[in-house]
Amino acid sequence: MNNKLHVAIYGASGYAGYELYKILKKHKEVEIDYITAESSAGKMLSEIFPVTDDVRIVRNEDVKIDRLDAVFLSLPHGAAKSAVEKITSSSTRTKIIDLSADYRFDDPDEYEKWYGQKHTSPDFLDDFVYGLTEINRQAISKAQFVANPGCYPTATILGVYPLLKKKLIDISKPIIIDAKSGVTGAGRKAEVRLLFAEANENISPYNIGYIHRHTGEIEQELKKIANANPKIIFSPHLVPITRGMLNTIYTKLNNDVATRELTELFDKAYQGETFVKVLKDDSIATIQHTVNTNLCVISVKRVENSPYAIIVSSIDNLVKGAAGQAVQNFNVMFGINESESLI
Amino acid sequence: MNNKLHVAIYGASGYAGYELYKILKKHKEVEIDYITAESSAGKMLSEIFPVTDDVRIVRNEDVKIDRLDAVFLSLPHGAAKSAVEKITSSSTRTKIIDLSADYRFDDPDEYEKWYGQKHTSPDFLDDFVYGLTEINRQAISKAQFVANPGCYPTATILGVYPLLKKKLIDISKPIIIDAKSGVTGAGRKAEVRLLFAEANENISPYNIGYIHRHTGEIEQELKKIANANPKIIFSPHLVPITRGMLNTIYTKLNNDVATRELTELFDKAYQGETFVKVLKDDSIATIQHTVNTNLCVISVKRVENSPYAIIVSSIDNLVKGAAGQAVQNFNVMFGINESESLI
Amino acid sequence: MNNKLHVAIYGASGYAGYELYKILKKHKEVEIDYITAESSAGKMLSEIFPVTDDVRIVRNEDVKIDRLDAVFLSLPHGAAKSAVEKITSSSTRTKIIDLSADYRFDDPDEYEKWYGQKHTSPDFLDDFVYGLTEINRQAISKAQFVANPGCYPTATILGVYPLLKKKLIDISKPIIIDAKSGVTGAGRKAEVRLLFAEANENISPYNIGYIHRHTGEIEQELKKIANANPKIIFSPHLVPITRGMLNTIYTKLNNDVATRELTELFDKAYQGETFVKVLKDDSIATIQHTVNTNLCVISVKRVENSPYAIIVSSIDNLVKGAAGQAVQNFNVMFGINESESLI
Amino acid sequence: MNNKLHVAIYGASGYAGYELYKILKKHKEVEIDYITAESSAGKMLSEIFPVTDDVRIVRNEDVKIDRLDAVFLSLPHGAAKSAVEKITSSSTRTKIIDLSADYRFDDPDEYEKWYGQKHTSPDFLDDFVYGLTEINRQAISKAQFVANPGCYPTATILGVYPLLKKKLIDISKPIIIDAKSGVTGAGRKAEVRLLFAEANENISPYNIGYIHRHTGEIEQELKKIANANPKIIFSPHLVPITRGMLNTIYTKLNNDVATRELTELFDKAYQGETFVKVLKDDSIATIQHTVNTNLCVISVKRVENSPYAIIVSSIDNLVKGAAGQAVQNFNVMFGINESESLI
Repeated sequence: MNNKLHVAIYGASGYAGYELYKILKKHKEVEIDYITAESSAGKMLSEIFPVTDDVRIVRNEDVKIDRLDAVFLSLPHGAAKSAVEKITSSSTRTKIIDLSADYRFDDPDEYEKWYGQKHTSPDFLDDFVYGLTEINRQAISKAQFVANPGCYPTATILGVYPLLKKKLIDISKPIIIDAKSGVTGAGRKAEVRLLFAEANENISPYNIGYIHRHTGEIEQELKKIANANPKIIFSPHLVPITRGMLNTIYTKLNNDVATRELTELFDKAYQGETFVKVLKDDSIATIQHTVNTNLCVISVKRVENSPYAIIVSSIDNLVKGAAGQAVQNFNVMFGINESESLI
Repeated sequence: MNNKLHVAIYGASGYAGYELYKILKKHKEVEIDYITAESSAGKMLSEIFPVTDDVRIVRNEDVKIDRLDAVFLSLPHGAAKSAVEKITSSSTRTKIIDLSADYRFDDPDEYEKWYGQKHTSPDFLDDFVYGLTEINRQAISKAQFVANPGCYPTATILGVYPLLKKKLIDISKPIIIDAKSGVTGAGRKAEVRLLFAEANENISPYNIGYIHRHTGEIEQELKKIANANPKIIFSPHLVPITRGMLNTIYTKLNNDVATRELTELFDKAYQGETFVKVLKDDSIATIQHTVNTNLCVISVKRVENSPYAIIVSSIDNLVKGAAGQAVQNFNVMFGINESESLI
Repeated sequence: MNNKLHVAIYGASGYAGYELYKILKKHKEVEIDYITAESSAGKMLSEIFPVTDDVRIVRNEDVKIDRLDAVFLSLPHGAAKSAVEKITSSSTRTKIIDLSADYRFDDPDEYEKWYGQKHTSPDFLDDFVYGLTEINRQAISKAQFVANPGCYPTATILGVYPLLKKKLIDISKPIIIDAKSGVTGAGRKAEVRLLFAEANENISPYNIGYIHRHTGEIEQELKKIANANPKIIFSPHLVPITRGMLNTIYTKLNNDVATRELTELFDKAYQGETFVKVLKDDSIATIQHTVNTNLCVISVKRVENSPYAIIVSSIDNLVKGAAGQAVQNFNVMFGINESESLI
Repeated sequence: MNNKLHVAIYGASGYAGYELYKILKKHKEVEIDYITAESSAGKMLSEIFPVTDDVRIVRNEDVKIDRLDAVFLSLPHGAAKSAVEKITSSSTRTKIIDLSADYRFDDPDEYEKWYGQKHTSPDFLDDFVYGLTEINRQAISKAQFVANPGCYPTATILGVYPLLKKKLIDISKPIIIDAKSGVTGAGRKAEVRLLFAEANENISPYNIGYIHRHTGEIEQELKKIANANPKIIFSPHLVPITRGMLNTIYTKLNNDVATRELTELFDKAYQGETFVKVLKDDSIATIQHTVNTNLCVISVKRVENSPYAIIVSSIDNLVKGAAGQAVQNFNVMFGINESESLI
């Protein structure tokens, strides 16, 4: 074993897991000891993805956990809980970055409400820090366990944070989030609705209103920022792009603030941040601003003759919305340059 | 000359004009005497579009107007005005269906405000009926001139009409329309932003808030329906599909109405309509519900624990949003079966 | 029961079956009595496809076969054999158009070789006419049973037929077919390789050389046309389009024939054909020439300073390559206008 | 000025120029002093591409050439010649990597034949080394001027090189190259055929046979490798993907060589090469094997019962087919690790 940080990626046969593999392979301080995938164990990675790397996939049980500095969990909701329980019982020092929703909620009842299953290790919930790096950097730097945010929550929370923090939003009105996501956001599942012939030349709203699972996660975090109870309406749409996510957010302002002032406010809120960029003037964020990057690009404008503002927030769902932010958190947790392997 | 209705299509080298050609070619009562396109005059249609039809494109000035029963104008805004002025001075009987915005406004000042040019024939504005067939069928049946609605207005107005008519919308709050349009909506223009390499794998909001030209048209028509002044926020997005349009509309209700009641209200409002379909229960409208058809497919739902409703309205921007509705209006104007060549 | 021809569509939950439904619904002489799909029986069609039609899907066993004039089979290979055996034992008059490969081969051993299963009703093979309409129209008009050709064979055979018939091809050299197919060609199966996120922004050659199942079918038919044994090399590629197929065919000519002469030869061979169009001069066939139509569009050119010709042949895999040609054959079998419901 | 190598990118507003910018920005030994684009001079890069970088575009004439270690020319054919003439007259030490075709030909008459313009600086042709790195590495390492290969030639030559070198190809028969290219291959030009609405859901063969400009370049290089005169047939197809290129190559073998032996031959030929990967066994190269990488991924198979082999060769047209290979050559020319900023 060398001086590098030794890590495992659980669930490397999914899109986020594979993205983790690609990012961590370039990481100067990291050695990937294991990549796992229960259903593909024994296969080479090149049998799953169009790559030329000679790497074999193993089972979770093949991992020698005590040798590892960190484990990235890119498992389905529910499966992450079991993995966390096993890892923590095998090694007290190994850090965990969990990309599932299993430890994102503070309250196990909220988890049960949105995910339809009882939480089996609620005691751990307190030990997990919600890993929205720009907002919780301090706590993440000291955390052993990080719950990496969902993709929609990442784009949404970063989009409204500066306004909510400054109490500029009229929270008596719902914050309306019309979200558009690429197809990798739904995971690498052989479902008819995700077939090329179904998703191409189509746009499908799904779970609109107040029923998508990320709704609860967004509300929990906005509450903490606002120190109040903002209501949200959240409408995701499946669009025919492979990766990328664009949230168009409509919100009523408390004060009379012009577009220029709003932009300055956002600029200030994200000053010094490598991975959040606020567009100037009349530019509007698009998917292509962020695809294949760890950036969240945001534009904000005041609607003409109206107290409403429109914020457009763009991320790559697999990078800042999943694997990239996971590595960003890993870097913070281990005191490494935050943008290592992410630029 | 035979017993058929003789028509000309002005502007057949654009996407809507070509769609008109394809629909009218199948029309049992129609003979297409001319297709025009100034810049492509003299060419065969097959040099412009991948078709095998042997049809030659001519100039507008080559058209013998007095022989024609109807002219379809699929010209850029501004150019339609000149064409209307010439046609009406050449023939008093020829009917006109204008697909441009030139005669959609009641008030020439509104036209000037949104289109940035003075109206040169404001006297004609009164003679043009706004051609949203389902709402103005009676007037259209008697009209000599019809101003065919824009694509965004068609999807939006049909989407809110039943609620607005019944005064169920709280018009003290803005009606928020988050619209997604395929690339043909921008026309057949050689612009960099419309290149495959730019539009693919991208989503671009543009003219969001209260600045897109269709905003004025939508407000004018909603005013008439509501007999009041509803405010709208309108945010179009360019999405990587060739054709299709999906409007997600957020509106605050006045009353406490459940999803089932809303659906029934819509059903009733559009009872007997061939080209408006209301989805049942939990189904949500998608682009694929309407692509290549003259349908407007609508779903409506009440947001859980909230006074807001979300209406999703889908049309094919080139059919119900342009050429199809133009032929629907033509059928009404000439007393032909309304769905001839449209099913 | 009315005067119409009563039909059933078996396998209406697949792409070709659904296309059959859409075409036959418009057919003036046809009443669709049943649509079947074993796995979706009991559901409404609108639960499977984004349509607004109120039609219920039933099981094959629910069909009263003796009332039917014709059955369209759009079933997987193998399943069609069982269906044919049942239908023929229930009704002696019902005509069958089978879209599977089960009855395309003259020789049951060839079927077994390419499809890996023994033929259970080889005696029927002689009763099925190979349904490439333009070539076997006479026989189809008298047939009770038609085996509808595969999509690749349709485009390939129509592409080389005029040259092969006139013995202009040097059959000592392989005819090389580089084929590109849209994703619906693979059927409506929940397979990972067909997911949007896998097929988009990708091109995947598969079963290239001499192993794809359609290779045998193409060779059998070319043999009959050539009265000799031409060899083929056949390389299909999956491309990110929903529908459409383009075959680029490379073949060595026997004689010194210029492009113009080749085009004339093709023109003559397909004179009077509604659904085969030969492009002139320098035009080259593209997918957009045929998408959503029953056309096969062909271009042919002699390579500069070379004895080779390149034929490009385009069809819509779901129309001329499946459902459209099936209805074309149905029309021929029942003496109806061949293009009814196809234009 | 620091210790880094100072470079300029001419033509940064095109896709290849922008790709150069993105790659060189990450290069540890490089400082980009200028990016130029005549038509966009004075604008920020972020006004052209969806980036957040604060970089201003200048004119070619604003560049202080004598300070530069190297210039990358990503200009249209013809324009590169003028630039080369100016640069060489301003500085004798500045190295040039030219991505245009202007200096790829050994013989000015061949240039004139394929590009339709007289060569204005034919004396320079001898000074430019053809920059297919894997084949000409030695000469490139000593060159001051490199003519970076075209995208189709790169994929084709790497695909047939091992067979041609070993004289395994029967060059009495044409080598048939059926090539498929993403839309960025055509450049960032506002042309109707490149619009999303035209290119999407389409495949368009163009300049097929023996007329595409890259045909001459491919033949020149294959001649040198074969020490003979192989003939080629080259048929490019525009496919609806943003980036990527796949060449399917059909060639008759001289000897009886099995697939396994062919693969071993290719493995050996490219042993130690970082950017050429040969797939094993039954794997076939796809676009996704190489997109966003500098790799050329190749698969080779012998057709069953036939003396023909099929080679599939995949590159990203903007990386190994343009900017990536340019930087690879730059690294070789300056003695830097060949994969710096390319992995």
